Amino acid sequence: MKIGLDIMGGDYAPKATVLGAISAYKALPEDQKIILIGDKEQALPFFSEQDFNPDVFEFIHTTEVIGMGEHPTKAIVQKPNSSISIGFQLLKEGKLDSFASAGNTGAMMVGAMFSVKTIPGVVRPAIASIVPKLKGGYGIMLDVGANADCKPDTLLQFGILGKLFVENVYGIDNPKVGLMNIGEEEEKGNLATQATYPLMKETNLFNFVGNLEGRDLFNDKADVIVCDGFTGNIILKLAETFYILTLKKGFKDEFFDRFNYEQYGGSPFLGVNAPVIIGHGISTPEAIKNMVLLSKTMIESKLIDKIKSVFK
Amino acid sequence: MKIGLDIMGGDYAPKATVLGAISAYKALPEDQKIILIGDKEQALPFFSEQDFNPDVFEFIHTTEVIGMGEHPTKAIVQKPNSSISIGFQLLKEGKLDSFASAGNTGAMMVGAMFSVKTIPGVVRPAIASIVPKLKGGYGIMLDVGANADCKPDTLLQFGILGKLFVENVYGIDNPKVGLMNIGEEEEKGNLATQATYPLMKETNLFNFVGNLEGRDLFNDKADVIVCDGFTGNIILKLAETFYILTLKKGFKDEFFDRFNYEQYGGSPFLGVNAPVIIGHGISTPEAIKNMVLLSKTMIESKLIDKIKSVFK
Repeated sequence: MKIGLDIMGGDYAPKATVLGAISAYKALPEDQKIILIGDKEQALPFFSEQDFNPDVFEFIHTTEVIGMGEHPTKAIVQKPNSSISIGFQLLKEGKLDSFASAGNTGAMMVGAMFSVKTIPGVVRPAIASIVPKLKGGYGIMLDVGANADCKPDTLLQFGILGKLFVENVYGIDNPKVGLMNIGEEEEKGNLATQATYPLMKETNLFNFVGNLEGRDLFNDKADVIVCDGFTGNIILKLAETFYILTLKKGFKDEFFDRFNYEQYGGSPFLGVNAPVIIGHGISTPEAIKNMVLLSKTMIESKLIDKIKSVFK
Repeated sequence: MKIGLDIMGGDYAPKATVLGAISAYKALPEDQKIILIGDKEQALPFFSEQDFNPDVFEFIHTTEVIGMGEHPTKAIVQKPNSSISIGFQLLKEGKLDSFASAGNTGAMMVGAMFSVKTIPGVVRPAIASIVPKLKGGYGIMLDVGANADCKPDTLLQFGILGKLFVENVYGIDNPKVGLMNIGEEEEKGNLATQATYPLMKETNLFNFVGNLEGRDLFNDKADVIVCDGFTGNIILKLAETFYILTLKKGFKDEFFDRFNYEQYGGSPFLGVNAPVIIGHGISTPEAIKNMVLLSKTMIESKLIDKIKSVFK
């Protein structure tokens, strides 16, 4: 197993990515290799600082970096030697089994769709965000930003992608899929959700539990929350703000602690032909480690093959 | 000044509405009359319980009630003697200066649009929700549920309605108006917000401060947050959930306390030809009192005339 990690991605790279890779290495069995993609010269001092032998990793030396503010499509085209471009090149060639980066989110999406490409039958890939549940455990919400406007068939597919993810990665049997909306009743919603409800009700591809409301984000009504990327992005950023507020106010609580993105590492980009994980820009070593471990679980679970077989 | 209050509206009516009306009476100057609309027979025992003379109020006795779960349009038509229908009839005839109810939200919207009607020039009225600010004070967000899908010109108008409300009711000079979106940059967003941004940037009807994100809900970036009713409703219900969670977890904090809807009483329905306030279904006496006081401020500020003069 070859887990690709962009060591140039994220606000605290390469220090945070190197430290995260070291932690992940210690947590992984020996046959699971982490491939570090980035500027080796910049990375080496952080290994020395830790008195850790860098030779346990395979390095792919790259000389360019796509900045957080760069235009995704332009950057991918103009910086073929960037860690993100090279990472996706290797993923496409099968030299990596997964690729993860806490770098430019747009470049990660564009890079994935240009290189390994969208799975045939999938209309639009989606970014899934992990959502902590009050009762314990996690659910996911998708899309959280890849697709601001979504047609009903796209939302239906997000339900399938999400179902397969939580089933295979979290081991949740027959997961509950809900549609984020503004009322429980079937006829409630905007044009998109009103048209999506009957499609979800009719499908036999997942267990549709009906409409959800903003108040249902953390309860047990659904394991998979489907929404367009506009709604999901706003929900996600609002929820993060609440977590930050509880921290600032000095409230300590096990539930709020599980809002900490570090614990799950990153957001899977679902619907492309390989495991791709996008980390938070502010990723710490702990987040990077968990992003690598999530990569491993996505590879082991053969999630991509399972998605392909449903959409073929 | 004649402030109309539906005493049959809300989960705890008529007890909560009677107690709220008594509190409001004590807080108001003598020349400001509260007109109670509802079943007088059901209300009187609660006055006796409080040893309070009901004759300080004018009563409009009604015999029907629109339930929380009833279909708004059907209910308004089929129950002409309901407290909501009669309230709007009186408002239309000028026998009330405002009308407030914690009853069926849909019936309140339909009733307002059927009776006093939408202000000429306003495309769609909107429900505005009060949002507490971290620095202290309040802003508003609109729409939070009246219009699930909104065209760019409608969103532009929400900016005008919101600006006039916070300027006249909260006394905020030259309020900052922002557009809820998924990124700060002009080109970010879904089709609706992408098309709305240039309209807001060009307008001289309010002080547009650009795009907001989910994380900006409680900060000082904007006094008026504009969004479609789908997005606003989900944000509102999610924010309420956080408040309830902090209560359940036993966190006490001045900021979270200001999430308590009781403090502001209700949500103004902006864009119709009279002050109309829709209360939370779970309104307590404190909420009812503050809904009456908000009615008073809306009347005194001549908000409706100011809106009319901008849209004429």
